[in-house]
Amino acid sequence: MKLNIALLAGDGIGPEVIDQAVKVCDVVATKFNHEISWKPALTGAAAIDAVGEPYPDETHEICKNSDAVLFGAIGHPRFDNDPSATVRPEQGLLKMRKALGLFANVRPTFTFPSLLDKSPLKRERIEGTDLVFLRELTGGIYFGEKGRRDGGETAFDNCVYTREEVQRLAKKGFELAMTRSKRLCCVDKANVLETSRLWRETVQAMEKDYPEVAVSYEFVDAVAMRLVQWPNSYDVLITENLFGDILTDEASVISGSMGLMPSASLGSDIGLFEPIHGSYPQATGLNIANPMATVLSAAMMFENFGLHAEGKAIREAVNNALNKGIVTEDLADGGKAYGTSEVGDWLAANI
Amino acid sequence: MKLNIALLAGDGIGPEVIDQAVKVCDVVATKFNHEISWKPALTGAAAIDAVGEPYPDETHEICKNSDAVLFGAIGHPRFDNDPSATVRPEQGLLKMRKALGLFANVRPTFTFPSLLDKSPLKRERIEGTDLVFLRELTGGIYFGEKGRRDGGETAFDNCVYTREEVQRLAKKGFELAMTRSKRLCCVDKANVLETSRLWRETVQAMEKDYPEVAVSYEFVDAVAMRLVQWPNSYDVLITENLFGDILTDEASVISGSMGLMPSASLGSDIGLFEPIHGSYPQATGLNIANPMATVLSAAMMFENFGLHAEGKAIREAVNNALNKGIVTEDLADGGKAYGTSEVGDWLAANI
Ligand SMILES: CC(C)[C@H](C(=O)O)[C@@H](O)C(=O)O
Ligand SMILES: CC(C)[C@H](C(=O)O)[C@@H](O)C(=O)O
Repeated sequence: MKLNIALLAGDGIGPEVIDQAVKVCDVVATKFNHEISWKPALTGAAAIDAVGEPYPDETHEICKNSDAVLFGAIGHPRFDNDPSATVRPEQGLLKMRKALGLFANVRPTFTFPSLLDKSPLKRERIEGTDLVFLRELTGGIYFGEKGRRDGGETAFDNCVYTREEVQRLAKKGFELAMTRSKRLCCVDKANVLETSRLWRETVQAMEKDYPEVAVSYEFVDAVAMRLVQWPNSYDVLITENLFGDILTDEASVISGSMGLMPSASLGSDIGLFEPIHGSYPQATGLNIANPMATVLSAAMMFENFGLHAEGKAIREAVNNALNKGIVTEDLADGGKAYGTSEVGDWLAANI
Repeated sequence: MKLNIALLAGDGIGPEVIDQAVKVCDVVATKFNHEISWKPALTGAAAIDAVGEPYPDETHEICKNSDAVLFGAIGHPRFDNDPSATVRPEQGLLKMRKALGLFANVRPTFTFPSLLDKSPLKRERIEGTDLVFLRELTGGIYFGEKGRRDGGETAFDNCVYTREEVQRLAKKGFELAMTRSKRLCCVDKANVLETSRLWRETVQAMEKDYPEVAVSYEFVDAVAMRLVQWPNSYDVLITENLFGDILTDEASVISGSMGLMPSASLGSDIGLFEPIHGSYPQATGLNIANPMATVLSAAMMFENFGLHAEGKAIREAVNNALNKGIVTEDLADGGKAYGTSEVGDWLAANI
């Protein structure tokens, strides 16, 4: 296969972890007889510095003409405590999601047996956890009208959903549940929000098309609790944009392997693949960041092209590295800590 | 002191746990020479069944003419999976919060040494956890305009905040921080939401009035993670309504003592005191629900009247019961499980 991949390294540790994923993908391509052409492009604070905006048109052109986007991380602390900043790195990510039609964010949370004891949760609570969130990514309060009134004294953000937006996300959820253990949880706040009631009634109406899937409906606050209490009681969860933002991050630390969690954003022909961790500014340039989440995001990318053997080869390499202790400092636990690039080299050499 | 207390038992296990709090309060009143006059009133599904609405005018009259409200729980499963229900128990709670001007929900999360091992988290992660959320309770997306367009195909919920609403909540936060370890965390999503930017800029402007308080600003998704990783790194957290709903519930399970967590809703002269757990429909009438959170909510009520010795007497009785194993089945851990009323009797007898 010939693959054109847009490469958006972004900010902070983004470039370092992306480099490792490229190394690994190039070896996979050679082994499995593919040809990858990488198209680097600017995004985030890096793009603001260079051309004044976080998702420049040239970047969009490159993404649109690619088969997939591999993404590092964006965000820079100098924007965070400045509520008056008008251009922010995050806007780039939101614009890109919308422009590429990436309405479904797929975020798995699973445990690695060798890392169970790194979790803040007790072993018996997390053993066997293997859940997937499908987070709606291009609607809701992120994209509704927002602004100020009364000379700046009143602020508003509008949360809007259409039935169709719910349906297309829920459809992916039902389909995913069919390939797994056939349990789907619809997360909402239907006791308070009208948008949540639309979610709930839409999903209820779709149940008849998937008679084998057992659907449950849970309030977002209850899910925030149960994720800590019994994460292994969940299979597939579907939810709107903001709830998904909060809950997927909460879920990510449960496994003890936050630095290992990949994600995919899907919707159109072009998928975007990125680690769920952020830009980790304090670690920038230190060659200490864990590249495995980005490498596993590349595995999701291959799998999304239908290239399952390629994805599996990457996953196995990561598993072997973990078992052999070829890990960065976040996982070293008193043992030897390898550098970001050393871990990348090892993975590339062991595909 | 003469105290008129509105007694809103509500749904599910509400009446059972409220009964125990009344027993305990009556003993406290006798010991400390107060006179409590209880004014029972209907709310929740119970009120819908009786008079067709969840917060009837008579109930509001009783609350308005009381010194405080002691509340059990509301919610009934028959409403939850019916998105078309037009009258819901939860509306009663929202209406009451608004009508009584209860804009600040105070939710402590703390650990009981004897219960540390009940937590889903490892002991070293939670030891020493003692944090308080101040959740804004009468604004935001809960109370903004909501509805449908396009013949029901589009739903919307508007999130609105005024600077003044943020200020009065933040003021309580700063003041609370001054009585504790002087650390305040403002939880928002200022990288995406305009209301969050208003929150952040308003709190930033107030910092100069509390030079001793160290303020941090964190995104809601990051807080959802850190609450699981290092809950004991927090002191006072302030946040808007919906974020507070999700995060306070998440925090409540961390201590392993969910059935013990009280709360206060403040803002006007009349405070409302309630356990944070819900109506637990499956346990209704079985005399197995843990009454301690409601009893501790009564302790917060006394303390809010400035009656600190009374509050302390209740807290000590609860601590003694825990140490002696006079607990309901949720905490029995293979030992003897006492009934709801037996625990209440023991507490009343040991004030
Ligand atoms: C950076 C931010 C805008 C983004 C979001 O809130 O969606 C991030 O938290 C995420 O989850 O991908
Ligand atoms: C019952 C519901 C409306 C309520 C809320 O969301 O505020 C509850 O979850 C709470 O936190 O008190």
